[in-house]
Amino acid sequence: MKKTKAIVDEYKIVDNIRSLGIDMINEAKSGHPGIVLGAAPILYTLYGRHLNINPKEPNWINRDRFVLSAGHGSALLYATLFMAGYDINIDDLKSFRKINSKTPGHPEYNITPGVESSTGPLGQGLANAVGMAIAERFLASKYNTKKNLVIDYNTYVLCSDGDLMEGISYEAISLAGHLKLNKLIVLYDSNDICLDGSTKITFSENVIDRFKALEWNTILVKNGNNINEISKAIEKAKNSNKPTLIEIKTIIGKYSKYQGTNKVHGSPLEEEDIINIKKTLNIRNVPFSVSNEAINEFQKAIIMRYEDCHKKWMNTFNLLDKNLQQELVQIINKKPNFNLKELEFDIPDKAIESTRVTGGKILNAISKLLPFLIGGSADLSNSTKTRLLEETDFQANNYSGRNINFGVREHSMGAILNGLALSGLRPFGSTFLAFADYLKPALRMSSIMNLPVIYIFTHDSISVGEDGPTHQPVEQLTMLRSIPNLDVFRPADANEVIGTYKAIITKKEGPSAIILSRNDVPIIENTKVKEVKNGAYIVKNEASKLNAIIITTGEELSLALNIADNLTAKGYGIRVVSMPSIELYEEKNDEYKELILPTTIKKFVIEKSTSHSWYKYVYNDNYLFNINNFGIS
Amino acid sequence: MKKTKAIVDEYKIVDNIRSLGIDMINEAKSGHPGIVLGAAPILYTLYGRHLNINPKEPNWINRDRFVLSAGHGSALLYATLFMAGYDINIDDLKSFRKINSKTPGHPEYNITPGVESSTGPLGQGLANAVGMAIAERFLASKYNTKKNLVIDYNTYVLCSDGDLMEGISYEAISLAGHLKLNKLIVLYDSNDICLDGSTKITFSENVIDRFKALEWNTILVKNGNNINEISKAIEKAKNSNKPTLIEIKTIIGKYSKYQGTNKVHGSPLEEEDIINIKKTLNIRNVPFSVSNEAINEFQKAIIMRYEDCHKKWMNTFNLLDKNLQQELVQIINKKPNFNLKELEFDIPDKAIESTRVTGGKILNAISKLLPFLIGGSADLSNSTKTRLLEETDFQANNYSGRNINFGVREHSMGAILNGLALSGLRPFGSTFLAFADYLKPALRMSSIMNLPVIYIFTHDSISVGEDGPTHQPVEQLTMLRSIPNLDVFRPADANEVIGTYKAIITKKEGPSAIILSRNDVPIIENTKVKEVKNGAYIVKNEASKLNAIIITTGEELSLALNIADNLTAKGYGIRVVSMPSIELYEEKNDEYKELILPTTIKKFVIEKSTSHSWYKYVYNDNYLFNINNFGIS
Repeated sequence: MKKTKAIVDEYKIVDNIRSLGIDMINEAKSGHPGIVLGAAPILYTLYGRHLNINPKEPNWINRDRFVLSAGHGSALLYATLFMAGYDINIDDLKSFRKINSKTPGHPEYNITPGVESSTGPLGQGLANAVGMAIAERFLASKYNTKKNLVIDYNTYVLCSDGDLMEGISYEAISLAGHLKLNKLIVLYDSNDICLDGSTKITFSENVIDRFKALEWNTILVKNGNNINEISKAIEKAKNSNKPTLIEIKTIIGKYSKYQGTNKVHGSPLEEEDIINIKKTLNIRNVPFSVSNEAINEFQKAIIMRYEDCHKKWMNTFNLLDKNLQQELVQIINKKPNFNLKELEFDIPDKAIESTRVTGGKILNAISKLLPFLIGGSADLSNSTKTRLLEETDFQANNYSGRNINFGVREHSMGAILNGLALSGLRPFGSTFLAFADYLKPALRMSSIMNLPVIYIFTHDSISVGEDGPTHQPVEQLTMLRSIPNLDVFRPADANEVIGTYKAIITKKEGPSAIILSRNDVPIIENTKVKEVKNGAYIVKNEASKLNAIIITTGEELSLALNIADNLTAKGYGIRVVSMPSIELYEEKNDEYKELILPTTIKKFVIEKSTSHSWYKYVYNDNYLFNINNFGIS
Repeated sequence: MKKTKAIVDEYKIVDNIRSLGIDMINEAKSGHPGIVLGAAPILYTLYGRHLNINPKEPNWINRDRFVLSAGHGSALLYATLFMAGYDINIDDLKSFRKINSKTPGHPEYNITPGVESSTGPLGQGLANAVGMAIAERFLASKYNTKKNLVIDYNTYVLCSDGDLMEGISYEAISLAGHLKLNKLIVLYDSNDICLDGSTKITFSENVIDRFKALEWNTILVKNGNNINEISKAIEKAKNSNKPTLIEIKTIIGKYSKYQGTNKVHGSPLEEEDIINIKKTLNIRNVPFSVSNEAINEFQKAIIMRYEDCHKKWMNTFNLLDKNLQQELVQIINKKPNFNLKELEFDIPDKAIESTRVTGGKILNAISKLLPFLIGGSADLSNSTKTRLLEETDFQANNYSGRNINFGVREHSMGAILNGLALSGLRPFGSTFLAFADYLKPALRMSSIMNLPVIYIFTHDSISVGEDGPTHQPVEQLTMLRSIPNLDVFRPADANEVIGTYKAIITKKEGPSAIILSRNDVPIIENTKVKEVKNGAYIVKNEASKLNAIIITTGEELSLALNIADNLTAKGYGIRVVSMPSIELYEEKNDEYKELILPTTIKKFVIEKSTSHSWYKYVYNDNYLFNINNFGIS
């Protein structure tokens, strides 16, 4: 008897979520009703029956993570979070998709409690979740003992056909399978519809078989409207020794007159349709009407489960050494306690080495002070020199490894780095600068979420030479500098590389890109570690009255100094300014800026990249020595 | 007896290819010997036994296509092309990786005869090949009759583990399987080694099973050193009704003392190692020594096969209507005969519609004049409005369709467009501007190869609003403008959209990006179709003495005109310049530039994008009205 009753209640909760979701979209006159109506049972089952979460403590360390990779289903998520008891009220739902609301068009990290990552661009969320699942295993290996599981959470994803079509999701899935991330559970809202019509027009592969080939556990749920069926699948998934894909067959826009078609995907339903849907769902046709009974039932289930698991968890947490407790809390709250003064790094006086080599040494030095530093390369660690030499590889049989072999998968590397950063770690990833293009969409998400991800790009200009134009970056520096919130550094020598890493590591938030050379460079007289944080500084002062300034970055500094010497010999007053970071220079006050680059003085720029970043400092093209064409080979 | 002799000769050819390849790398002191030694039997088998090609006529219409997706194997390719009789001599091989040589570091289209596409960035070549296979089926449907197969070639790819790890290759493979492109044959050099070590560290999926799940035919060749085994597999593949993956197990750097390890991947072999390898191969230890007998044997096999198939082909070609013959030759030689004067498009005087809608109408108008125009959208055709309304979908049961449903696969869409352009078609692809990021690496390849691909990006600024920062492009215009060879257009209204398409369609080469609004815009007084080709022109002249100029693009033109009107009313002499294409403006002579934007006059810029493109036209930040932060939602 009791069980039957509970089931009835559960569907009532699902239908209330559905109803709220379509009301939100109707009120906003914009949104995606199809997924709300189709996938509500999935989200309910997850929140109502499985997630170990406390809506009142959304940042609890050991909470289960949920990522809505199908970010266009935001109305579904917000309606669920509201009913689950997160700090979202009915007015917030009414403000869906309105400016500065708690319920933006796509889920945004740091805006809505319960939202673990900003999603929307397809495939990103799924790859973020792989990063979260890696972080979980890494932290578990660090803080758990055999009996005492302080870190032991699952990472869930709801994804769509669109997510699975994107190459980034394939990359992330392949790596997750390889790493046997068995606490990763992907719920696939399989509705056979994409924006342009039936998925049959373009996506006819066998998804289950694909995931099997990628070393995943797979489960098919034939009736996506059946809570018990979904719940059993999740239960099985939790007991798998591999990551699990649960393909759940749903009907997009269920109960709408357009159900099962792309007409119900991306725009509000017609009024009459809404009336009929609400009639079917037995919900009062008053916008935002919701059953308090359903809310209570939902929240009770969540809290009871939480109280049970939280009590057990507190026992394990209390067994942890106090220092480790503190450290863990710091990590998860993304406030690592890190004394940069300890970062000692001896530079030989006359070292001639590429900045990628120096960068590798410094990264290694930092890794010893910062146990949360973890990362790797897109199969180029031998070239980018970012391997942590005293650390092991992160592998299925060794989750304490801090070197991640991302494979030739730049795009998912970026998104996985975001997932690691969202989990409190300080991640880095490396590839050649020319291949920064491959991960731009993920780097953009780092920037939108302001995550402290470190991107290391080596082989930094056309001077890579014989590999040809495909491998010679030309426009990539401009691309990176055009991304808001991203600090781009192109250090000139070992001193500036150290200064760059110091600036990056002391940042509390926001991504950084460090651009390093393949070519050997000498240590330049007068470059300064401590000046990098100012973005630009004087490396060579004018000998006489200031006639002109040469601004430069990276390995072009030597060339600039040679030119300056020649001109000085001819009697000109030439200053050379090294500008390892345009962004940091631009943040300085006007007084400093005027000191370094007086307005009235002519300036030249030497940098092997396209000119776009530099016009602001010069009168016109004649003062720019840049590369505005592809290289040759 | 005869057969035995032939096999001996064939291996001798293979070993000569190997030997030349390592000599080239040794001479260049740079390159990738691992793939040369490991995969030479694959390339030999393909050229020696299967490819219908004529090295003396590398652009023969119905030639089989071969794409080296593993572009780092360029030495292997050049050595093979040299021995096969392409216009490459031994001095060219000696100039491997030297500046301006015919044998650049990675294969480059238009530089080396026999190279069908520039490759190197992993995954691109494979996706290009999918484009070529689509083009083949499209042209076949157009020019073949049941009995008369004028277009009937295979497209072959050699790819590496790295290619298959990249998300773009998954996307392309998924679509190729869906489209049943059975004349596409992928040879997978499966050597279990990636740059950072064994593929076991990151790539343990079952590739054969993955391809099966993606609706491919699959064949495993266990001994990649056995020509007969490889050849039988290719023969089977040719008879498949699906695209075929042939996984060929090879030993990277075979015969080197480092064979089977990543040490032999990416740098020249040691002298002693080379001596021993040549001893094993029974080749004289003199650099670039090569057996003329082997060359003759190889070329004889290729030409005999060619003469046979070319004779048959000429018979079919001669049966074709003369006009169709001419058209086909034009297409394949990328010289479409297209009279733009026929492009009539009536604009209602006071139309208010988004430029994406106008753009869709014009694209449709063009498609009627230009039968080689083919393309589609990354599952957003309803939003980007790029569907060709009177044309059908390109599908496995209808290869004459001109609407390609790329799916949510932006990156492979870009690379497939490149493959279509390399096959003589005039391709277009569309998505939202914010998602231009996803295809940047492919767009870069369009630009490097200077292919006439049309990229259509809609939803062009933060004014897309409620979808939030992930969907609001901010820095994408700067990214696009920073790419050499790419012309970027942001038309203001219907007139400028027409002008843009006219400028694009009359271009002989080079990619274009057209940026269109989601928002409705009116037709502006004084915008001119014919002015777009000048890049910038005056839309509103100063009423009195010229005090200042407002430069603007896209839908901001209305705003600029309003401001100008206000200032004019206050007595200022304000000119408004619409600049739909910075690139085209910059190509104009100084006289024109000075006429439009006199040097001494103050200029302001209004554009909803980051500022980088615009500093060159203004004194400083104060004159720029741009968006340099992510949008809000």
